[in-house]
Amino acid sequence: MMIQYTIFDFMPGFFDCTMTLLRFAVKGLHCRGSIRYNAVHPENNHHPFGGMQAKPGHIVMRHSNRRWKWRLVLAVAALLAAALPWDSAVAADRPYLSHGAGAYRDQWQAPSVYQWLDPNLFTPNNPIQGVFNGEACVACHAGVTPTIVNDWKISRHATAKVYCTACHGNDHQKLSMPKPETCEGCHKTQVSQYKEELNAGHPAHARAMDPDVYRNAWQMHKPPAEVVGCAQCHRIGSVGCDSCHTRHKFSAAEARKPSACMSCHSGVDHRDYEVWENSKHGNIWQAETQDTDWTKPLQRGNYRFPTCAYCHMPGGDHNTVRNTVYAGMGTQEVNRGAPEHQAKRDRWIGVCGDCHSSRFARAQLDYMDDAVSVSFKKVREAKRILEDLYKEGIMEPMPQFLAPGWKGGHAAAFGGMNYNVPTIERLFYEMVAFATTNTFKGAAHSSGGAATYTFGAFEADKYLAAIKSEAEKMRRMAKIEQKVGVPYQPSEFWKHGEYTDTLKVIKEPKDGR
Amino acid sequence: MMIQYTIFDFMPGFFDCTMTLLRFAVKGLHCRGSIRYNAVHPENNHHPFGGMQAKPGHIVMRHSNRRWKWRLVLAVAALLAAALPWDSAVAADRPYLSHGAGAYRDQWQAPSVYQWLDPNLFTPNNPIQGVFNGEACVACHAGVTPTIVNDWKISRHATAKVYCTACHGNDHQKLSMPKPETCEGCHKTQVSQYKEELNAGHPAHARAMDPDVYRNAWQMHKPPAEVVGCAQCHRIGSVGCDSCHTRHKFSAAEARKPSACMSCHSGVDHRDYEVWENSKHGNIWQAETQDTDWTKPLQRGNYRFPTCAYCHMPGGDHNTVRNTVYAGMGTQEVNRGAPEHQAKRDRWIGVCGDCHSSRFARAQLDYMDDAVSVSFKKVREAKRILEDLYKEGIMEPMPQFLAPGWKGGHAAAFGGMNYNVPTIERLFYEMVAFATTNTFKGAAHSSGGAATYTFGAFEADKYLAAIKSEAEKMRRMAKIEQKVGVPYQPSEFWKHGEYTDTLKVIKEPKDGR
Amino acid sequence: MMIQYTIFDFMPGFFDCTMTLLRFAVKGLHCRGSIRYNAVHPENNHHPFGGMQAKPGHIVMRHSNRRWKWRLVLAVAALLAAALPWDSAVAADRPYLSHGAGAYRDQWQAPSVYQWLDPNLFTPNNPIQGVFNGEACVACHAGVTPTIVNDWKISRHATAKVYCTACHGNDHQKLSMPKPETCEGCHKTQVSQYKEELNAGHPAHARAMDPDVYRNAWQMHKPPAEVVGCAQCHRIGSVGCDSCHTRHKFSAAEARKPSACMSCHSGVDHRDYEVWENSKHGNIWQAETQDTDWTKPLQRGNYRFPTCAYCHMPGGDHNTVRNTVYAGMGTQEVNRGAPEHQAKRDRWIGVCGDCHSSRFARAQLDYMDDAVSVSFKKVREAKRILEDLYKEGIMEPMPQFLAPGWKGGHAAAFGGMNYNVPTIERLFYEMVAFATTNTFKGAAHSSGGAATYTFGAFEADKYLAAIKSEAEKMRRMAKIEQKVGVPYQPSEFWKHGEYTDTLKVIKEPKDGR
Repeated sequence: MMIQYTIFDFMPGFFDCTMTLLRFAVKGLHCRGSIRYNAVHPENNHHPFGGMQAKPGHIVMRHSNRRWKWRLVLAVAALLAAALPWDSAVAADRPYLSHGAGAYRDQWQAPSVYQWLDPNLFTPNNPIQGVFNGEACVACHAGVTPTIVNDWKISRHATAKVYCTACHGNDHQKLSMPKPETCEGCHKTQVSQYKEELNAGHPAHARAMDPDVYRNAWQMHKPPAEVVGCAQCHRIGSVGCDSCHTRHKFSAAEARKPSACMSCHSGVDHRDYEVWENSKHGNIWQAETQDTDWTKPLQRGNYRFPTCAYCHMPGGDHNTVRNTVYAGMGTQEVNRGAPEHQAKRDRWIGVCGDCHSSRFARAQLDYMDDAVSVSFKKVREAKRILEDLYKEGIMEPMPQFLAPGWKGGHAAAFGGMNYNVPTIERLFYEMVAFATTNTFKGAAHSSGGAATYTFGAFEADKYLAAIKSEAEKMRRMAKIEQKVGVPYQPSEFWKHGEYTDTLKVIKEPKDGR
Repeated sequence: MMIQYTIFDFMPGFFDCTMTLLRFAVKGLHCRGSIRYNAVHPENNHHPFGGMQAKPGHIVMRHSNRRWKWRLVLAVAALLAAALPWDSAVAADRPYLSHGAGAYRDQWQAPSVYQWLDPNLFTPNNPIQGVFNGEACVACHAGVTPTIVNDWKISRHATAKVYCTACHGNDHQKLSMPKPETCEGCHKTQVSQYKEELNAGHPAHARAMDPDVYRNAWQMHKPPAEVVGCAQCHRIGSVGCDSCHTRHKFSAAEARKPSACMSCHSGVDHRDYEVWENSKHGNIWQAETQDTDWTKPLQRGNYRFPTCAYCHMPGGDHNTVRNTVYAGMGTQEVNRGAPEHQAKRDRWIGVCGDCHSSRFARAQLDYMDDAVSVSFKKVREAKRILEDLYKEGIMEPMPQFLAPGWKGGHAAAFGGMNYNVPTIERLFYEMVAFATTNTFKGAAHSSGGAATYTFGAFEADKYLAAIKSEAEKMRRMAKIEQKVGVPYQPSEFWKHGEYTDTLKVIKEPKDGR
Repeated sequence: MMIQYTIFDFMPGFFDCTMTLLRFAVKGLHCRGSIRYNAVHPENNHHPFGGMQAKPGHIVMRHSNRRWKWRLVLAVAALLAAALPWDSAVAADRPYLSHGAGAYRDQWQAPSVYQWLDPNLFTPNNPIQGVFNGEACVACHAGVTPTIVNDWKISRHATAKVYCTACHGNDHQKLSMPKPETCEGCHKTQVSQYKEELNAGHPAHARAMDPDVYRNAWQMHKPPAEVVGCAQCHRIGSVGCDSCHTRHKFSAAEARKPSACMSCHSGVDHRDYEVWENSKHGNIWQAETQDTDWTKPLQRGNYRFPTCAYCHMPGGDHNTVRNTVYAGMGTQEVNRGAPEHQAKRDRWIGVCGDCHSSRFARAQLDYMDDAVSVSFKKVREAKRILEDLYKEGIMEPMPQFLAPGWKGGHAAAFGGMNYNVPTIERLFYEMVAFATTNTFKGAAHSSGGAATYTFGAFEADKYLAAIKSEAEKMRRMAKIEQKVGVPYQPSEFWKHGEYTDTLKVIKEPKDGR
């Protein structure tokens, strides 16, 4: 039996459109010629990243010395991909997920609640028949669901006589849920800015649902009910507007407040809200939010403190990608001073300039870049430790003893798939996806504690220490086992378990690995 | 020497009245015929759950195939228990703790501060003599403790001329602290609803102090000063009203705000507040709380967003159990569609219906049920790994090498007693008590991040990975030790240590285990 | 080759001025005759704490039985230190860090952004030439940086015609950043109270930057960009006023709100804000902050709830040390009832007395003292386990196999230097610096969850369990290795790694340890 192990370089920027946020987060690790193992099945050996044959149980690695050849191939592929209109690619995909991957690829079924997360999945189904005008809707629903009618009554829609029918239709048997296009008729500027994000890089609100979630992410390699929560935020890519302008008031003032961003931009993976809240900017917001006039546009001089939207949607620009990260956030270590990042840096200096001198803004960005750079020193040190465990064949356990991953093979993923992996990989994943990104976000938002002791650099220290201690134990035991002739036999639980079994590929390899 | 190991099934619903919240949380693990080891002392072999003899150091397990016999016994016991009036049982217990268990059972003394946590313990002790009317109280205390007098002055009590004396008495040498009964004279509906909780299941505000804390929980197996914090929340079962309507303003509007629930319903064990705050419901609250009229009753149409009280105390119903969980929260995996849960499910669909369609509410509840179901697949997979370590006798260390637990024996508690246990049991405990319940709570409150990456399903992944890695090391070392003839001798620190020694049973077993 | 290992007792209170906050946190471990290992280089054997010679690889410990001798020496040293005026010591130090320690001691360079964190480092550098009066500043900056001009316009400074020039000068080529002395002209009482802190003990706002950060702490043993976040809070010791009264409004009302304290007094190391927020005090604040008149002085009867400033700056006293901890916070176990702590205890009873009886306040403080006492039982139990690993020579790895620490030697620091240490030391560090202090803070702020399950006592249980499990593995492996003759060879990664190498002392010891 032959096992196919592929080794490939990631090239930042090329694979955004087919990468999940999660994999994106790990991508940064690879931008300095670092390596990534991926053991795939023999039938997959058309893998464009190349690969090499190896005997079972023996992992061979190869640092690509000819990576430019692949880069050329990939560049061409990327150009071709870019030439494909995104919308038509989406259209071809419906019904969803035919081009997905993972254990659930063929059987993934959107849970019923997805109808309200993605208007394309909504099927009207209610006992009321008839065609109604807006006033009739309001009259009846004031009794049935009074709260949303109250919301509408205080909205500008009510003043402008934009009734329920404008967004949901008037035939009660054919009601629909609004899409961005529904709003576009009246709110052309905002929706077109939002749609510009489709071609503005990654991550982006407008890409959050379809390419990020449906086609490549958790939705297809975890039990559907387990990942509904992901879609609850990522739906901003399918519904769009009401993620921030909540139903049925659709207030601009509400969307300007940080609470509009909080439920998605918080938590271990993306602590944007907490980090900002903990900065002096956030402190002043907390002190003064009640005395602030939120009806004012997001323009210089109108607010005493910067909020999410003030900086990332200046002047109300709904293309947040344009106003957000430069240099791949904190998840990639790239040359942050390279020309391609200059425009965004200059934009940031302008945004900070409403309150701060350009000299201060520049110093702050320099510090941020340096802090990111230092944080990746730790990441690479940790990654080297994990790599060595694989090279020496002493990872507990080696990939072939794990249940196959969601791509259909065994992977030494360095944390990219953060379930059913050796805990040292999980530690590494958290080090990158949590501590390293938080170091960046803390620095970017001037939140000292976040950049250092609470979420950032000192957390990374903790992960590095834990990785060393875990690796040391593997090495000690392997040495003893070799000496006394008790070879390590990985436990069956790495392959099987009541939950783990649900994650396996549909058709396991015949050789029963 | 014989060691008695009992193995028994937990039967959900029967033992609420004598179980701690903590044990309750673990109970869910056992509702599908799973097992639980409990090694008790020989003198305890009258244990109603049966058991079997085993040689020392050899743990025998038995899946009860005849569990219905026990269920019958337990059902009868439960009926008998239900027939006992709760109040009289409480009365018989005072002075406190005579029927408790654990190392501190005979020596537990409420720290002095408990006088203010439990009105039954309060002893008036102050230098002022005399009998005063309310106006005299106010006149003097306006200087002594001005803040509480200010509070009272803006309260409805002041308007209604309900003075200090109404609750505390008028003899300064015989002052008392109010109990729910003190408030009942004027607030009959609310207090009687609160008292209904005594027979409404578990958990319940009205049962929080006496049965939960005094008789079975931490209060009796930890140093008293260490667990005062527990009682600071659980006092809602003894004082009742001022946990939410803070002294001495006793405002209904205040108690409607989520802050009233926050200090108890937050934190790792019960992240209700954070989970809700992170949902869109919480986001809208944050955006609009300052513009909300909190004097309005908790009725449909009165609030733009649902708060804790809006959903769990609809119309101001002070029996929160009636309006809370169905199907045992996320800590039990039961057939959530069973008829006994139908009434609560229907109630929830009604509550959601103030804003959402019943179809949406139903889909949301279905998703929640499915997410809980998936989460227990992980729990069982992890539990099987721990069980195997016990079966194989390779747990690090086996129970008999631990200091005796608070029930007087050694226990493989699977985390139920979360101190002085192998860290793998602690991991399991946290997996169930933190990650699994958060998955439920995240789904229940539509908080995607809580259900998945931050607190829920992905945290459970982390625990499962950590448990596997920890188990693997035990197995590898055991195998080597057997081969080379260096049997594992558990360290003395499992039995003794400056703190651990304080936790031991008063009278250790004679055989010195 | 000789290796010098020194063993010394810490004596609480003596070394404040040269200790970092971090080391301070650990100091408490040592106040009952406990020991601390510190392996220093031979050239360092003038260490005032004494020491003893030992063979390489063999650690010798000594419980000082003659600690009173050292105490005398130290007392004299402390008196001498106290006699040195702090200001002149600071002055002698500039330019910064010449007297520092650690790997970066000779090469530490304040990143550019420090100019805005420390007015002593600011160098004016802008293209505008000329001397301007305040009105000209305002006229021009209303366009250049409008937000700060708006802030100034609503400040009392504007009313009082205190223009930009009063704090920054009027020559655009010689602008400066204000120091506390700048404010002192008008705000004499507040600044002098703030400066009193310099001699009021540790920690103190006024000492936060220079002695704590520049001379002894992270700034000198971590890459500069990694620790900018530390200085963002600690700058309160160099700039002072605008940490709480934010630019350019400088509002007293703002500084009274808890948000003013939050960004520094939160997070894993010092959860003051979260702990208070989670208490009933914090709950009422959350419920009523919008209806509170924050322009009122911080005096009894003016507020319904206590905030950070209400208790720790009563009457607006800017010497927070006077109104803060007694008995060394929760990081030291001292005789908390000793006479030296009596004044602060009495003060606290007075502060609580605005709302509570003195009897309640006393009971609460007693409980707090007892809870701290119990928490240190766990700390000592854990420390004993670590000590034994060192005594037995089985720590994974022993200090000499680690990269040299920032003081130029190998240290068994018990967590004091929380990077590149065995993970068991990191666990111990977190147990003390996080769980133990939180137990204190939870009790001090009446936050039950913080004192117990979420941040405090139960977290300490978790750390203790993890420490036992980690120690047990070291012991088992060492025993096996000895039996089979495979001595443990610590991995190279303990000494070298891309990040670890940046932390090493400039000049490594010649013997290449």
